[in-house]
Amino acid sequence: MISPEFLNACRDILGAGQVITDPEDMAAYLTDWRGRFTGSAAAVLRPADTQQVAAVIALCAAAKVPVVPQGGNTGLVLGSVPDRTGNAVVLSMKRMNRIRSMDLVNNTITVEAGCILETVQDTASEAGRLFPLSLAAEGSCTIGGNLATNAGGTAVLRYGSMRDLCLGLEVVTADGKVWEGLRGLRKDNTGYDLRNLFIGAEGTLGIITAAVLKLFPQPKVQVTAMVGLNTPEDALRLLTMAQATCAASLTGFELMSQFSLALVTKHFPQMRTGFAQAYPQYVLLEISDSESEEHATAMLEALVAEAMESEVLCDAIVASSIAQSKALWSVREHITLAQAAEGKHVKHDVSVPISSIAEFIDKTDALLQEAFPGCRMVTFGHLGDGNLHYNVSAPEDLADEAFITHQDAINRIVHDSSVRFGGSISAEHGLGMLKRDEIRRYKSDVELGLMLAIKNALDPDRLMNPGKVL
Amino acid sequence: MISPEFLNACRDILGAGQVITDPEDMAAYLTDWRGRFTGSAAAVLRPADTQQVAAVIALCAAAKVPVVPQGGNTGLVLGSVPDRTGNAVVLSMKRMNRIRSMDLVNNTITVEAGCILETVQDTASEAGRLFPLSLAAEGSCTIGGNLATNAGGTAVLRYGSMRDLCLGLEVVTADGKVWEGLRGLRKDNTGYDLRNLFIGAEGTLGIITAAVLKLFPQPKVQVTAMVGLNTPEDALRLLTMAQATCAASLTGFELMSQFSLALVTKHFPQMRTGFAQAYPQYVLLEISDSESEEHATAMLEALVAEAMESEVLCDAIVASSIAQSKALWSVREHITLAQAAEGKHVKHDVSVPISSIAEFIDKTDALLQEAFPGCRMVTFGHLGDGNLHYNVSAPEDLADEAFITHQDAINRIVHDSSVRFGGSISAEHGLGMLKRDEIRRYKSDVELGLMLAIKNALDPDRLMNPGKVL
Repeated sequence: MISPEFLNACRDILGAGQVITDPEDMAAYLTDWRGRFTGSAAAVLRPADTQQVAAVIALCAAAKVPVVPQGGNTGLVLGSVPDRTGNAVVLSMKRMNRIRSMDLVNNTITVEAGCILETVQDTASEAGRLFPLSLAAEGSCTIGGNLATNAGGTAVLRYGSMRDLCLGLEVVTADGKVWEGLRGLRKDNTGYDLRNLFIGAEGTLGIITAAVLKLFPQPKVQVTAMVGLNTPEDALRLLTMAQATCAASLTGFELMSQFSLALVTKHFPQMRTGFAQAYPQYVLLEISDSESEEHATAMLEALVAEAMESEVLCDAIVASSIAQSKALWSVREHITLAQAAEGKHVKHDVSVPISSIAEFIDKTDALLQEAFPGCRMVTFGHLGDGNLHYNVSAPEDLADEAFITHQDAINRIVHDSSVRFGGSISAEHGLGMLKRDEIRRYKSDVELGLMLAIKNALDPDRLMNPGKVL
Repeated sequence: MISPEFLNACRDILGAGQVITDPEDMAAYLTDWRGRFTGSAAAVLRPADTQQVAAVIALCAAAKVPVVPQGGNTGLVLGSVPDRTGNAVVLSMKRMNRIRSMDLVNNTITVEAGCILETVQDTASEAGRLFPLSLAAEGSCTIGGNLATNAGGTAVLRYGSMRDLCLGLEVVTADGKVWEGLRGLRKDNTGYDLRNLFIGAEGTLGIITAAVLKLFPQPKVQVTAMVGLNTPEDALRLLTMAQATCAASLTGFELMSQFSLALVTKHFPQMRTGFAQAYPQYVLLEISDSESEEHATAMLEALVAEAMESEVLCDAIVASSIAQSKALWSVREHITLAQAAEGKHVKHDVSVPISSIAEFIDKTDALLQEAFPGCRMVTFGHLGDGNLHYNVSAPEDLADEAFITHQDAINRIVHDSSVRFGGSISAEHGLGMLKRDEIRRYKSDVELGLMLAIKNALDPDRLMNPGKVL
């Protein structure tokens, strides 16, 4: 149990108002985004700067109090909520939300961990720059959380995941020291890659307090097309053609199955793609261009014409306005909401080598149909990254609640299948509490041993976000 | 001392011919590329596959024999040669030189550590793909060495360093186990980033035996220009303009000072840039394009015209043929040779935030002139990455040998200056033995402590490439 002395010491550091112990005030920090888990904590601590984080972590280290760092608390794998023991403190980073500096020649922005992603996007945009990370929770999630989970989203194809967008970090270590790694360098080969070790560690090795992020020139124009195709195999052929034709201008390549789109039009009848008939698969393509709308549209139309001629695609709609582009993206973005409206389902976030996607879908669909005849697949995702949100809905004649009881068996089929193809059971969401046990089935003893050795080296008392990842 | 039993056990694993103990046969493995250091070893071991590496490393772990992994032995910081104790074995990876597989839809190639970089480039090229890593030693250096040092080169601006080009690794750990991390995935958020920890660790945490590398579509055309400018400040202005105009099509942006170029034309009189007069600075620009030569040339000419109008540059030569492009690159590539022909000098491989490059050059030049009046700066490098090869030659009236005795003092001025600008003392070469002590002046105790904790966790007996990095 946490002593009153510990909490008083926290109040001395943070101010009394920033040490929350009232259950009602703590509630929002204890339940995850999807409302599936509620933990317990001795207090929620709200530091204002790095020195306060360091001082609080030093206190926790001395008193052996576990710490759960939390940003926007929008994660999908229960990585940012405490367990139910009530032993831990939640360290909310949301007050550390300053943009520290921006350098338009170096193309970098230095921000604190509690900055909302959208604020960073907007700040960059106002300066004529692009911060490319883009994902559904961008209005609420924080840069610290994005780094802790190595967030992905829809721009990974061109710009990479959060790891690729970060040049330097400031981190408070498990013993309450500050690692000043806030470098804005494109190249620095002077020792072990600590930055990438903290990125994606989900707060289990230390607390990220600030970061230097990469900015890019703002593209002049983005044009979008949606195409109808027969098979995921054809989508792969289209991807190879698009990469050859458009190279780095290809900034989006999203796959959606017919059923995914049907759910959107069922639950959001105002959403329309404009196709005269339905196709088994759809791809949303985006081209970003630094020249002109004419140039971008010509490039996209040439690609579509070539693919049509090669019988890779059946039909295509090239957006002729920003409004139409947005409408096409909106269809893509409404799949998750439409599926939620349809009922409960079993979600997955798998990746496989891009070349195996078609076969993965075929084989896994077949295995699931065999085990759960009539189950309905909501398959969509970032095909250009080999990342599918491969979700399974109940057969029409089965209640969702009854179907959901098979969740473990469904996970087993899907995860076994992705690993059989050399894939991952968590492409962009992380492990958190939710997949911590699951990953032990798939990682070798050697890999788990290496991870454990690193954990023990950097957090020997196991106080950093306990129960997550490892 | 190494026992005869140990060597016999190595012979049992590798075959007698692959355990080299004859001093004459070992010589080539014991001296570094630039011929500045010769170490000593008990034997050179030449494994043919991963299992042999694992078996040999297990033997070394049991007998506490230090291991120095070596690829092409082309490093510049004494990272791949043993020290002078003679206690270690050199593990030459050159027999492990197979291309294991290539996947043109996933755009990946799986290669063994001993593959020569040029072989990988050529294999990709024959399949219509680009493996972009490109550097002076590409005909001799190996992928394992490129990974161990996180190699850079001339394509980093667009494609990143080796770290950015690798998706998965196979590694033999310090206790002789095999980590099977050969994943060809663009996204995988399932635990700590072991891959990036081994990359850039210079063989001090384990032995990289194979890797999955990224391939890219082959650009249709590359066009090159060389421009003359007044100041590094103008070069930075040109970089910002080029990034806005050309985005990801900008694949090269190399700075060269007037004196760098003068050395080339002095020692290689057949080399000519074609400018009617000399300028204080030059930039070599390269555009890669997936459309057509006309399109690429028009883009480059528009940029040059805009920059000329803004008085950012004084004159420009846009190559009108592949031969002329190659000639311009050749001038850039001959700087190192020309400088060697001129005499001994003190080399640096620093990086600073790109926005600080001009000020770094001004301030550091002034400090060096104050300390060593008349010293001559050979300043060139990857401006687009913030990476300068900032080399110092003797004043004309001073013998090289006399000047070289000031090496430590010169290093101190240059390294202090780069760190004052938030920079690095080794942008792309690594630390090896050469900069191991030097880096201790610049890294914080916190950072060194984190590195040491990781070293102790993964190589507790300190047998992996001892005396390097840490």
